[in-house]
Amino acid sequence: MSDETPSRRAAAAFAQTSTTAATPVAFGDLVALLERVFLRHGTSERVAAILAENCASCERDGSTSHGVFRIPGYVGSLKSGWVDGRAEPTVEEAGPAFLRVDAANGFAQPAFLAARDRLVGMARASGVAVMAIRNSHHFSSLWPDVEPFAREGLVALSFVNSFACVVPPGGRSAVYGTNPMAFATPVAGGDPMVFDQAASSMANGDVRIAAREGHSIPPGSGVDRDGKPTTDPKAVLDGGALLPFGGQSGVHKGGSIAFMIEVLAAALTGGKFSREVDWSAHPGAETPCTGQLFIVIDPERGGTGAFADRVAGLIGDVKEAGQDRMPGERRYARRARSLRDGIPLDPARLAELRALAGDS
Amino acid sequence: MSDETPSRRAAAAFAQTSTTAATPVAFGDLVALLERVFLRHGTSERVAAILAENCASCERDGSTSHGVFRIPGYVGSLKSGWVDGRAEPTVEEAGPAFLRVDAANGFAQPAFLAARDRLVGMARASGVAVMAIRNSHHFSSLWPDVEPFAREGLVALSFVNSFACVVPPGGRSAVYGTNPMAFATPVAGGDPMVFDQAASSMANGDVRIAAREGHSIPPGSGVDRDGKPTTDPKAVLDGGALLPFGGQSGVHKGGSIAFMIEVLAAALTGGKFSREVDWSAHPGAETPCTGQLFIVIDPERGGTGAFADRVAGLIGDVKEAGQDRMPGERRYARRARSLRDGIPLDPARLAELRALAGDS
Repeated sequence: MSDETPSRRAAAAFAQTSTTAATPVAFGDLVALLERVFLRHGTSERVAAILAENCASCERDGSTSHGVFRIPGYVGSLKSGWVDGRAEPTVEEAGPAFLRVDAANGFAQPAFLAARDRLVGMARASGVAVMAIRNSHHFSSLWPDVEPFAREGLVALSFVNSFACVVPPGGRSAVYGTNPMAFATPVAGGDPMVFDQAASSMANGDVRIAAREGHSIPPGSGVDRDGKPTTDPKAVLDGGALLPFGGQSGVHKGGSIAFMIEVLAAALTGGKFSREVDWSAHPGAETPCTGQLFIVIDPERGGTGAFADRVAGLIGDVKEAGQDRMPGERRYARRARSLRDGIPLDPARLAELRALAGDS
Repeated sequence: MSDETPSRRAAAAFAQTSTTAATPVAFGDLVALLERVFLRHGTSERVAAILAENCASCERDGSTSHGVFRIPGYVGSLKSGWVDGRAEPTVEEAGPAFLRVDAANGFAQPAFLAARDRLVGMARASGVAVMAIRNSHHFSSLWPDVEPFAREGLVALSFVNSFACVVPPGGRSAVYGTNPMAFATPVAGGDPMVFDQAASSMANGDVRIAAREGHSIPPGSGVDRDGKPTTDPKAVLDGGALLPFGGQSGVHKGGSIAFMIEVLAAALTGGKFSREVDWSAHPGAETPCTGQLFIVIDPERGGTGAFADRVAGLIGDVKEAGQDRMPGERRYARRARSLRDGIPLDPARLAELRALAGDS
């Protein structure tokens, strides 16, 4: 895998900034700090605990564009009244292998976790199961949602739409969100193989990091407010839009995936389409209120008795063919380092988080 | 959607050739002719009927790279003894929402159709269902498999792996097949929206058409036998390989999708990985023997009561934003024209098919 993806570069740039005279923070301490931030901004204790663990996990694993960098956005959404930090999700069984969850304008992760164990039970009982979450604010990476399924021996897919910031191929105005999808599979004798990738040319968080750090974005990534190609992240954020991934000759494929994700995460769940997200009455809001779909499969039903071994063999072949590393490997390495040495945080950012937590 | 994709260009070039003084053939007549070709080369009547209808449908709809262009490949595989044209698939229920099908070294479509109605029943009963097919030869488009689900109100995904002809990002030797995936969704008041796209930069059939027609392929599509980038389709076919789709900055995303498809279509089903396909003892064989996975979801379980209307609204937004047409629209237009005017076939090709059928 290339080191030169926009996401990797922006994250590396950010990591470099934040490790210059960085303060190492233990994972548990960061969770506790973020929990205080969430609680102080109106979430329930359950929601604070879930979001703090999720966000600290992203920071720990080097998913910096979804780590503490996102805290001002969470706080903005909460302060603006756009999201309900105390929402109580409702879970309905819509079939023996289909769960429907109304996040009630709360965050996606607490809604997901309210029904996750039932989803696992359904997948084990039926061979496959679906969870359709609506009215949910997802503002994080997707890999923390799917990785644990693979650790339990299941294959998981998840799809989430966001807010309109991606033009369809050949289009002039934004319809799709960045629309990430994630896939997780068990691997014999190793960590799960997990990928989590936007259907857009870049993740929106990475565009914001590039704008902040003054980097340009690769050609083919986005258009300005007039629909013209641009490499300036500020032009993309200021009335422009991203393109689907795929590059010049494959952008229609990325566009089709973006479309599919709108259908699965919004039309099917009852969540809002990315284009329907209207937070104009809530200045400061940053968390899109849309939907999320999970598909969880029990691979042992395939009857091979060797599923995870076969996946491990495939990974061996991919590496032997010359791919440097699998998606997720860098996250696991970073996780191990963070757990050993602490999570490196920029002192200014740490001070900012402490102020948001109301620490004296 | 751009007209300038390699697939579109190769198909257009082929269509142009074949409509120069083309002979119009009625759909039913083409099915009957192809049925005779299959029967004469050792398939059962059931297999001949299914493959003939499938192949004629591709030709009818302008999917020319999977139409009669493929007949010599089918015949080569049958003659070489690589595929069993009389295979009887076995179907097992591996769970209330999981069907396992052994195609017994036969073609994928007859195996699929042997259990398709049970799959629909399971999806309607449980909300979602999976079909895992192994030991199957898929040599056609995927859209004919999934489009009918959407006409019955279901959402369908399918994944199939093929034979090693795609290098992982940064790699030097082929591990993945072209690994297409297809997605179909109902649309209120219209034909289903169906896309069917390779995880490679191009479909293998399109590389072969480009080689035959003397076209180059776009930069970033493939590498030669030394792993160097090339735009010569012959260099790709002659010991080289394709790249995953995604373009320079997104090739790792296409690579992750290719990986996922190996896992779903092969590791999970018990089919062979693309790299395991070894037809060296069967000269003339062209149909990869691998696996295929279906995921079929009942979107009404989402509880919106307006799923297909919402998808129609989304398509309206996509077109309003400037996308010329949705995937599949050109196929439907071509289908209508073929059913009205006949399917335009090159007279030389028609003569070739008649010879293969043993017509006097």
